[in-house]
Amino acid sequence: MQKILPVIMCGGAGTRMWPESREATPKQFIQLFGERSTFQDTMAMLDASPLFETPLVITNADYAKIVAGQVTEIGASAEIILEPMRRDSGPAVAVAAEIGFRRSPDTILAVLASDHSVLDRAGMVAICAEAAAVASQGFIVTLGIKPTFAATGYGYIRPGERIGHKGQVSRVGAFVEKPDAEKARAYIADGYFWNSGNFIFRADTMRGEIARFETVMAEKVAGAVDAGKIESGCLVLDAASFGEATKKSIDFAVMERTDKAAVIPADIGWSDVGTWSAVRDLIERDESGNAVRGDGVIIGATNAYIRSQGILTAVVGVDNVIVVATSDAVLVLDARQADRVKEVVDRLKADNRPEIISHR
Amino acid sequence: MQKILPVIMCGGAGTRMWPESREATPKQFIQLFGERSTFQDTMAMLDASPLFETPLVITNADYAKIVAGQVTEIGASAEIILEPMRRDSGPAVAVAAEIGFRRSPDTILAVLASDHSVLDRAGMVAICAEAAAVASQGFIVTLGIKPTFAATGYGYIRPGERIGHKGQVSRVGAFVEKPDAEKARAYIADGYFWNSGNFIFRADTMRGEIARFETVMAEKVAGAVDAGKIESGCLVLDAASFGEATKKSIDFAVMERTDKAAVIPADIGWSDVGTWSAVRDLIERDESGNAVRGDGVIIGATNAYIRSQGILTAVVGVDNVIVVATSDAVLVLDARQADRVKEVVDRLKADNRPEIISHR
Repeated sequence: MQKILPVIMCGGAGTRMWPESREATPKQFIQLFGERSTFQDTMAMLDASPLFETPLVITNADYAKIVAGQVTEIGASAEIILEPMRRDSGPAVAVAAEIGFRRSPDTILAVLASDHSVLDRAGMVAICAEAAAVASQGFIVTLGIKPTFAATGYGYIRPGERIGHKGQVSRVGAFVEKPDAEKARAYIADGYFWNSGNFIFRADTMRGEIARFETVMAEKVAGAVDAGKIESGCLVLDAASFGEATKKSIDFAVMERTDKAAVIPADIGWSDVGTWSAVRDLIERDESGNAVRGDGVIIGATNAYIRSQGILTAVVGVDNVIVVATSDAVLVLDARQADRVKEVVDRLKADNRPEIISHR
Repeated sequence: MQKILPVIMCGGAGTRMWPESREATPKQFIQLFGERSTFQDTMAMLDASPLFETPLVITNADYAKIVAGQVTEIGASAEIILEPMRRDSGPAVAVAAEIGFRRSPDTILAVLASDHSVLDRAGMVAICAEAAAVASQGFIVTLGIKPTFAATGYGYIRPGERIGHKGQVSRVGAFVEKPDAEKARAYIADGYFWNSGNFIFRADTMRGEIARFETVMAEKVAGAVDAGKIESGCLVLDAASFGEATKKSIDFAVMERTDKAAVIPADIGWSDVGTWSAVRDLIERDESGNAVRGDGVIIGATNAYIRSQGILTAVVGVDNVIVVATSDAVLVLDARQADRVKEVVDRLKADNRPEIISHR
């Protein structure tokens, strides 16, 4: 069976996970669960399966060291591609497609997020294998997650007509925006999936679609790869060309326009771990719904979650609170308003506070 | 007019004000409000009025340095009396009465707490002067605070028959225990006062009542003063004698038994500042009821209060929360359950945690 070339997208900022996530060490590199980062979890999953080739890791040049360090730490290997500036996900995927295409036009690539949580790693690998078979027929196959609650924080996918006679793969009927709660319930009733943003395709398929919809992006990305330089073992994309690649998400650039999009159901315990509440909901908690990571005490509260790094943290009587304590910043968050951490970060950014850049 | 000899009781532990209050620097010595401790506020009030002599400060031997330092810091002076061990308030008041008596039997003493907040300091001084006049007739005059809400955290005083024809001084009808909310409302309707624990008396009156009700306490305290030694300008009570003085509060030892107790109404903006909620309720807050002392940000919350020492603290969406952040410990407290901080301290004590002893 043809191996899959994984492409790990590693350039995110993760502002909703402040104060652990900082500009210098964003969400994908912090230990949200256990002893490894979600980036390392993803790398380890790929490393453990013969289905995958050595992954391409696409990240911002600022994160070169941390990526290399985290890869080495778990004994894996990666080809690291550095973006000299942020151009959103479209150019990143275009780079991967271009590199895959130059190896061979029928290379199968799997674009995977580095900051998601997947409880069923074996299931994830199996889905990738299935999706690769569909992708080899010229589809861009996105992983559609079976919803487990009426999430308003995810985009949804309406499945269209079935592809083939076995399995449950469909064409994508439509990508739909994040809904309100009522719409979310209707979507679930109608069999929609969550859009996980992980997708699998043949290099020539994606490269062709990008060339078709985003000519400038395709040309500039090809130029950035051509003029790229190897530095300390990483491919550094050429800044002059890459900086001119259209700044656009792959969703807007291709996925919402192409007629080659397909969706494969993936019941793999997936979460994009977008907020501290999502983290709390994924970990083991006691009979009161409480959990402590690090040095904490909870008294008279339910569904409270303490994450503390070296500072004793006590919660008294506050239900549904999430406390994230680091050496230089403390966040006290109502779990039902976990999205609003972004407002704190915006405020701190306006004040030029160092506590959003790096840890003291 | 005869001057008053103030006696500042300074031996408390203040566990409900953790993590700012620690065993080594309890509540009365921390800057609850503004730049001074409540002990310093009390000292400054006395220092500013010609009504008062140089105060006696009675404290635990462990606090000798901090008391001397805080007195010097505000340019006041004090006679410091050190207890070699904690014997509750009865022996402390007995020591003050004994020392006052040796100066002159008719010395007027005012026993004042060091950890209370009084908004109307001028009113407090005026009440002390009035109370002194009543005390000179042989009464032990306690300051009765006109209740401003149905407090369940204070003991109450039922006023008895009026004393004299002017003013509103009464004999104490009864001291009553901390009530539930329903009883508290009834007490207020019936004109009861809060028992502030500040009282004024002639030395011979109090000394006589202690001798009458607590013979052992009186004898051992006299012995502890006799055998006391001056060390670094402080009177250190003799440990052998003082350790045998009956361990009992002045309320149980005298106030609830004597027929000489009187109560003078004091409408002076008093609070015992027993909890972090009491602090929050005393400070200036914005139109959402929020307040920040130190480095904090509040988003999407009402009646939130942040106290932070050198660590950026953000609250998102949690109403009625009090966050106290220090360099080595963080408390996240529901303001309506502020009493329960004691449970945290008990837990930490059981675990021998250094965070209850002193600041790192």
